[in-house]
Amino acid sequence: MKKIVDELNEKIIKLKCPVVVGLDPVIEKIPNYYKENLKDAKDKLGAVADIFFNFNKDIIDSICDIVPAVKPQMAFYEMYGEQGIRAFINTVKYAKQKGLLVIEDAKRNDIGNTAKAYAKGHLGKVDCGDGNKIPVFDVDFITVSPYLGLDSVEPFIEECKENNKGIFVLVKTSNPSSADIQDKVDENGKHIYENVAKFINRYGAELIGDTKYTSIGAVVGATFPEEALKLRKIMNNNIFLVPGYGAQGATAKDIVNCFNDDGLGALVNASRSIIFAYMKYESLETCSKEIYKKYVRESAIKMRDDIVQELRNVKNNLKY
Amino acid sequence: MKKIVDELNEKIIKLKCPVVVGLDPVIEKIPNYYKENLKDAKDKLGAVADIFFNFNKDIIDSICDIVPAVKPQMAFYEMYGEQGIRAFINTVKYAKQKGLLVIEDAKRNDIGNTAKAYAKGHLGKVDCGDGNKIPVFDVDFITVSPYLGLDSVEPFIEECKENNKGIFVLVKTSNPSSADIQDKVDENGKHIYENVAKFINRYGAELIGDTKYTSIGAVVGATFPEEALKLRKIMNNNIFLVPGYGAQGATAKDIVNCFNDDGLGALVNASRSIIFAYMKYESLETCSKEIYKKYVRESAIKMRDDIVQELRNVKNNLKY
Repeated sequence: MKKIVDELNEKIIKLKCPVVVGLDPVIEKIPNYYKENLKDAKDKLGAVADIFFNFNKDIIDSICDIVPAVKPQMAFYEMYGEQGIRAFINTVKYAKQKGLLVIEDAKRNDIGNTAKAYAKGHLGKVDCGDGNKIPVFDVDFITVSPYLGLDSVEPFIEECKENNKGIFVLVKTSNPSSADIQDKVDENGKHIYENVAKFINRYGAELIGDTKYTSIGAVVGATFPEEALKLRKIMNNNIFLVPGYGAQGATAKDIVNCFNDDGLGALVNASRSIIFAYMKYESLETCSKEIYKKYVRESAIKMRDDIVQELRNVKNNLKY
Repeated sequence: MKKIVDELNEKIIKLKCPVVVGLDPVIEKIPNYYKENLKDAKDKLGAVADIFFNFNKDIIDSICDIVPAVKPQMAFYEMYGEQGIRAFINTVKYAKQKGLLVIEDAKRNDIGNTAKAYAKGHLGKVDCGDGNKIPVFDVDFITVSPYLGLDSVEPFIEECKENNKGIFVLVKTSNPSSADIQDKVDENGKHIYENVAKFINRYGAELIGDTKYTSIGAVVGATFPEEALKLRKIMNNNIFLVPGYGAQGATAKDIVNCFNDDGLGALVNASRSIIFAYMKYESLETCSKEIYKKYVRESAIKMRDDIVQELRNVKNNLKY
């Protein structure tokens, strides 16, 4: 049966685009055009949430025929409480209507029954106590943190099997201080991130699809090309979700190690450099809806072209 | 100035009770008394959320004069989407009205601006884009995961300083597979959990209150008494949030190592063994509101007495 990872790979090949756009709304950076109703709003949190949803719809409309997926970062919605969660869920629904896959970046983790609750809420269906089971967040993929150990990840894997979903487990993150824990070397001379990578690769074997990749992926930062090369070998059939491109400083040259020779195996994320691209040319006041959407689309196309060009230079067996 | 950790210590001393009650609602386990309106509800998620809030109010009313704090586990609310978040926030408000401190168990973590967004939403105030800044979750403490490194924790510490809040960072969790990452030994012969402990103790120095403890605490599982002894020495002035008592199998003897000689330095959590204590004696059908509240109160008192008795046996310098 076709798995969610196969859908992702087919979209990447069809669109010739291994790029995911991060939907990370920040109210201060959103053009005033979207904020006309804010001043008079009684429910300020609700007003911000509505602005986020309309803002996201324009981003999605601008890139849904270019990229295979979007990655809303839960923190930017959750901080606005129930209203923010509503904007998040509406964004997920709209993105799916437009044919995009949705990767929720939430870095959830807990143990046993609690991890199960997160997994059911975000990937599965929740029990309403009267026999009804309802999908709530219903995203295609979610990011998961492994610090608590295997049993913080297993309940997510179970939901992936039941509902044909996927996860990306944090392995080597893009931030400088990711070294604090992830780069520690154990008794066997292995870094913590290598231990996590081996575990993920082993678990991934249960969810390999027609495209020979697994729905259990890994987060590997674009800012660490050497580690990526090592991790690519350990996790040969796991998809890497690659943050750190653009605003965090990584370039196309830095991320080619995250890909296999077939040009698959990695999905490179950019958020600020696309959704706030307009800020290089326009101000909050001058940026119209049309201008905003134009810069989103242009910056996404440029990122795609830069990455694909670099892949053409170094990979022998590109599938696109 | 009095810090949130001082409020916690003063309550523990006044009530002679280093116990926190976990508010982890599970719809299947809630007595039918609370679920009368569920069957006919149009908005099922909203109906479950209302049930959770009413259920929590009865727990809070039953124990607010016995324990210093409650610990709602975000996963059980978040899984029901925006409605669940509403129930969570209403529970936080009600618990505070009743004089309880609130520890949000959310194990959040991310990097840079994203961690900042979580920290502002849960501990601080969020920017509404029109000059208004609003507290949203406004809990007293939140649990944080350290896997991403120092910069996943620093933004939370900043919000603690600005808003007189506290955090508990995951160090050694109560689950069996916590060993997978936390127990790895580094080049210097130190476990990962020891490295995290040292970092937390160092950071805690910036937030030490009148009671000589810091608002930056640690999660240390009740199921690992030997590790607790070692960690107590490294984190002499950090409060331990101690899960694993009761349903997870740890007893009063297991958790005394988490305390200093003054009987402070630890807060022991129990959830299922208190909020579902009634299940040993009653069924979903037979458990009335009064019976339910009676078992909650009795089990909380028994847990308090068991722990304090054991502390009296082994500690020389109890403050209560």
